[in-house]
Amino acid sequence: MQHFASDNYAGICPEALNYLIECNSSGHEAAYGDDTWTQKVCDRIRNLFETDCEVFFVFNGTAANSLALASLCQPYQSVICHELAHIETDECGGPEFFSNGSKLLVARGENGKLTPDAIEQIVTRRSDIHFPKPRAVSLTQATEVGTIYSVEEVRAIAAIAKRRHLAVHMDGARFANAVATLGVHPSEITWRAGVDVLCFGGTKNGLPVGEAVVFFDRKMAEDFAYRVKQAGQLASKMRFISSPWLGLLENDVWLRNARHANAMARLLRDRIVDIPGVSLMFEPQANAVFANLPIAAANALRGKGWKFYDFIGAGGCRLMCAWDTTPETVESFASALRELCTATA
Amino acid sequence: MQHFASDNYAGICPEALNYLIECNSSGHEAAYGDDTWTQKVCDRIRNLFETDCEVFFVFNGTAANSLALASLCQPYQSVICHELAHIETDECGGPEFFSNGSKLLVARGENGKLTPDAIEQIVTRRSDIHFPKPRAVSLTQATEVGTIYSVEEVRAIAAIAKRRHLAVHMDGARFANAVATLGVHPSEITWRAGVDVLCFGGTKNGLPVGEAVVFFDRKMAEDFAYRVKQAGQLASKMRFISSPWLGLLENDVWLRNARHANAMARLLRDRIVDIPGVSLMFEPQANAVFANLPIAAANALRGKGWKFYDFIGAGGCRLMCAWDTTPETVESFASALRELCTATA
Amino acid sequence: MQHFASDNYAGICPEALNYLIECNSSGHEAAYGDDTWTQKVCDRIRNLFETDCEVFFVFNGTAANSLALASLCQPYQSVICHELAHIETDECGGPEFFSNGSKLLVARGENGKLTPDAIEQIVTRRSDIHFPKPRAVSLTQATEVGTIYSVEEVRAIAAIAKRRHLAVHMDGARFANAVATLGVHPSEITWRAGVDVLCFGGTKNGLPVGEAVVFFDRKMAEDFAYRVKQAGQLASKMRFISSPWLGLLENDVWLRNARHANAMARLLRDRIVDIPGVSLMFEPQANAVFANLPIAAANALRGKGWKFYDFIGAGGCRLMCAWDTTPETVESFASALRELCTATA
Amino acid sequence: MQHFASDNYAGICPEALNYLIECNSSGHEAAYGDDTWTQKVCDRIRNLFETDCEVFFVFNGTAANSLALASLCQPYQSVICHELAHIETDECGGPEFFSNGSKLLVARGENGKLTPDAIEQIVTRRSDIHFPKPRAVSLTQATEVGTIYSVEEVRAIAAIAKRRHLAVHMDGARFANAVATLGVHPSEITWRAGVDVLCFGGTKNGLPVGEAVVFFDRKMAEDFAYRVKQAGQLASKMRFISSPWLGLLENDVWLRNARHANAMARLLRDRIVDIPGVSLMFEPQANAVFANLPIAAANALRGKGWKFYDFIGAGGCRLMCAWDTTPETVESFASALRELCTATA
Repeated sequence: MQHFASDNYAGICPEALNYLIECNSSGHEAAYGDDTWTQKVCDRIRNLFETDCEVFFVFNGTAANSLALASLCQPYQSVICHELAHIETDECGGPEFFSNGSKLLVARGENGKLTPDAIEQIVTRRSDIHFPKPRAVSLTQATEVGTIYSVEEVRAIAAIAKRRHLAVHMDGARFANAVATLGVHPSEITWRAGVDVLCFGGTKNGLPVGEAVVFFDRKMAEDFAYRVKQAGQLASKMRFISSPWLGLLENDVWLRNARHANAMARLLRDRIVDIPGVSLMFEPQANAVFANLPIAAANALRGKGWKFYDFIGAGGCRLMCAWDTTPETVESFASALRELCTATA
Repeated sequence: MQHFASDNYAGICPEALNYLIECNSSGHEAAYGDDTWTQKVCDRIRNLFETDCEVFFVFNGTAANSLALASLCQPYQSVICHELAHIETDECGGPEFFSNGSKLLVARGENGKLTPDAIEQIVTRRSDIHFPKPRAVSLTQATEVGTIYSVEEVRAIAAIAKRRHLAVHMDGARFANAVATLGVHPSEITWRAGVDVLCFGGTKNGLPVGEAVVFFDRKMAEDFAYRVKQAGQLASKMRFISSPWLGLLENDVWLRNARHANAMARLLRDRIVDIPGVSLMFEPQANAVFANLPIAAANALRGKGWKFYDFIGAGGCRLMCAWDTTPETVESFASALRELCTATA
Repeated sequence: MQHFASDNYAGICPEALNYLIECNSSGHEAAYGDDTWTQKVCDRIRNLFETDCEVFFVFNGTAANSLALASLCQPYQSVICHELAHIETDECGGPEFFSNGSKLLVARGENGKLTPDAIEQIVTRRSDIHFPKPRAVSLTQATEVGTIYSVEEVRAIAAIAKRRHLAVHMDGARFANAVATLGVHPSEITWRAGVDVLCFGGTKNGLPVGEAVVFFDRKMAEDFAYRVKQAGQLASKMRFISSPWLGLLENDVWLRNARHANAMARLLRDRIVDIPGVSLMFEPQANAVFANLPIAAANALRGKGWKFYDFIGAGGCRLMCAWDTTPETVESFASALRELCTATA
Repeated sequence: MQHFASDNYAGICPEALNYLIECNSSGHEAAYGDDTWTQKVCDRIRNLFETDCEVFFVFNGTAANSLALASLCQPYQSVICHELAHIETDECGGPEFFSNGSKLLVARGENGKLTPDAIEQIVTRRSDIHFPKPRAVSLTQATEVGTIYSVEEVRAIAAIAKRRHLAVHMDGARFANAVATLGVHPSEITWRAGVDVLCFGGTKNGLPVGEAVVFFDRKMAEDFAYRVKQAGQLASKMRFISSPWLGLLENDVWLRNARHANAMARLLRDRIVDIPGVSLMFEPQANAVFANLPIAAANALRGKGWKFYDFIGAGGCRLMCAWDTTPETVESFASALRELCTATA
């Protein structure tokens, strides 16, 4: 399959699969997370973040984000997010469903990123009971357009949030890719910068299924286990969700996978940036390249079997790299594109 | 681990694991179910039931049951179920959460089973708008107490349901165990008997994670994919949820696994039924034995490391067998129990 | 209209109507409760209860109870109530809808009343996350069967509730009738006995529409105004909901109305208790008589145009008196019943 | 009170109050809408619209709109509305709460109005299950900025809606004002133009409390009574909500009230349009004038006790007239404004 369609098209990375298999060969274990594997992974995540956080595993990103936000917000409260945030554009109303009505208040911002000013403007716009009271800010790291919040940007947002009594949620479906690019300790871009809850994505990074919800503020995690259970997100054979994380966390495989995906995106950018008719929409900082391709070329690529998504209007394409995207795939795509564009020009 | 605690303590059966591994080695595949593996499993399930049913995969039983019921009921409608039904006693309000308020109306009944009369009584008790209108009947097959509805029983219930315009939902977390015992074709106990939606359990039968929701009435499945997505139950790498089903479905492994578990329960029953102080609570028909054990003996067994659940009041114990429970485990438990009870007596 | 069907069949008492009319003649006023009338009524209620409680007005009892409970409970938590409680039997799933899934856990108890033991039993039955965690106790005062909790009974329940970290909610649709019978200060049976939130009924007591939600624990009222707004319970012309309360609260009209209704029920009881074939189901303490009537007599009464409700099985009838039920109506009903029963006997 | 703040500040019009009083003097009546008054009003509304529509009464506009939309949409579906629609800006997430998550998809449009093109663009933008499927269009008539959809405009929108299988909801909080301006039969701008459900506002038009939900498509009204009950919107003493409508509907008082309010807005417009520094934001077609006032003048007016709302940014003011706003109030405000502006200029 030739594609830059999604990092979800990739399989399980070997290290994760090995742990899944090993875990299965270890005999019976208690259900619902009362097993040694899950305990071990939770400890590993606490070590990774160098803090005594609360860790929960749920099945996917929709659930991770929606449950985290539902635990922060009452139905009459609201969440501030970027207009391109996944929770706004691609969860089919999941956050509103899990929270029973919490409204998402969207802001604009360059490069898919919220700014302190945009947040401040939304928070101060209304203070009457006819409008849902903002209660949380949600950041996507890396963003939906392949950009990354710097530590300073997260801190500045968290400061405004604190002042306005807003909790800070980070949608980290591609958190690994952000950390890999930033080159900082994972704690620096999360709790040390003021993040309260992180949805730590594993699936796009090489797991079969499952994301971690990490509460840095333990108080916010109160009764979260009940919420997870009621919402159909408690795995009975939890160890098969948790144990593969060991493969990611040992020897920094999660960062290695992310660095590779990021590098492939960078390579792809370099190979196509000077092709006539091609223009970058955003400077890639994570594992995706967003570029305007000539429509004829895009169609021709699809005709040749290449898969990728349109994004924001005519010509805009999202080219997403995975933990196992090969340089050959990149070169092959870039060559095909260059040929098509040159022929046209 | 010595236990009869739960069939969720067991691991992945080899056939399922093999397909998971094979699926992973097949390269990239489209996400969200648009892959060849998922397509193949859906077709296999349609073949199994000999009808053109709609098949969806979700992550666990809470979600399967709750989403199926939410698709049948509006918030002001209600579901009739047995007072011991899992959806009533062990989903932490999941059905009410997913449906935004559909009430469960509980009925009593011998051996954990609903009867047509009990349903009729509930349906006809109230017809005013101050009470939620019954819209569905939910049967658990096998029941929470290890018993099984016969084909005739399901048919009789479905007939009343039809007359009263109630949809028929079957919670089949242990559907395999029921079919194994009944020795009928799976269609006989489902759509041919009047069942509209089956939550077909795979996890307890040897899968790592995931249940199938099977709509025999395709019209009822309209837009169910949206519901699944919004509720955080759509797997991005769906093939890892679906492909292991191939291992269960090929060569009737699902039935072999179930027959084995049932046989172990039967063996356990036979080994303990005549122990002084021990009495069966229900005649085991599936993979669980419910028995009253002398409290001292139960405690002593626990002291020796045996795990099992209490059930309904003092002395009542649930002894659950899995697809890989060994005869040795059964014999070992029975011997220990016999010794303890004989010593006491 | 000849009836003992419901205290909702009665109209607006003159004192309440006068205030409605006076309020309307006072010119324009701010909307949504920012008016002088609403402020005045809230102060009056604070004076009545001799404490600085928070007061909100909503449109009816379903909303008052459901919103109060939703503010106490998260969706995965539960409410303990009597199996005959209005919130369980006559709100069409309202509490589950407003709370997005909080389950009602029902207990039995003599005379329609919860007991500390019953509550303790429910609270201690389960402590796992598969069952919704009890978070509140709901008492109905007066109960659905016309009985009344004594101050001691409420105190004993509140003590258990406190120990188990349960909030105490009182459904006071007929709170006036209870206070009238008990002859205690309204604070004695509410916050001084440990009640956290009272739904103070006005409609059955002579108002056109509207109930008060009184939070004795002001902290529990945080953001309740938002909840009321979102749930469609904020009156734009609030003064027409609030001002009629002045008519009830001045000169203790609310107690006078309740005493009259109670007296009529007592008179009715006295007139029918010795009729052959008639038996009391409960000793009436508020404004309703629950009695078993000979079925033929009940049917004959209905044939003569009398309206009243069946209650719990064959022969059980609810005879409800209102603030303006006349002694003549009581005598007329009793005579007709006596005649019918005597003729039959 | 000197104000152009809200038509909700006005009281009950005499004709409505008279019916409320008359209704109260007519003795006991059945509850929950089974009374002769409610029956009569429903028939009157059916006559008014010249069709056999289903009519329900609820307590306020938030509930009317939210319940109507919840009956049209499942949680994973969405509603298309203008970005200034009341349901988007002033219901505190009510529609999302009642529907358990249906998202509002907002469109821009001149004069506060949706266009067929804007709807078409939203409907066709996405067709994947990651985005909530549009199911309804909601029009506000008159709009939030005091403009009015012509019959042709409604028809054109309804045609697109029909083609795209969207139900058409009309938020008619100020429906009377729209009909008064358009001078058409109420059926022309509703069902004859393709509207499926109308929330027919009464409160702003002279009632104390209560709006009518009118289903022109009777099939859509199925079980709506249950929905109303569960959501806490069923009045026990319904006749006091319904009977005042007779006062509005007899002799076209509803249109007279609306015409007067509209005329006052027109007068106000004429008196201020040529004041230096004042500019109209929209040409008033209903009972509100939206104008930019010099900030100093606006503040000075407030200092003199005038109340009115800011609207959309600095200087934008909403001046709302009610059924009983007097010409003297208009002249007094206009004079004060002219004086302030002239002094400044």
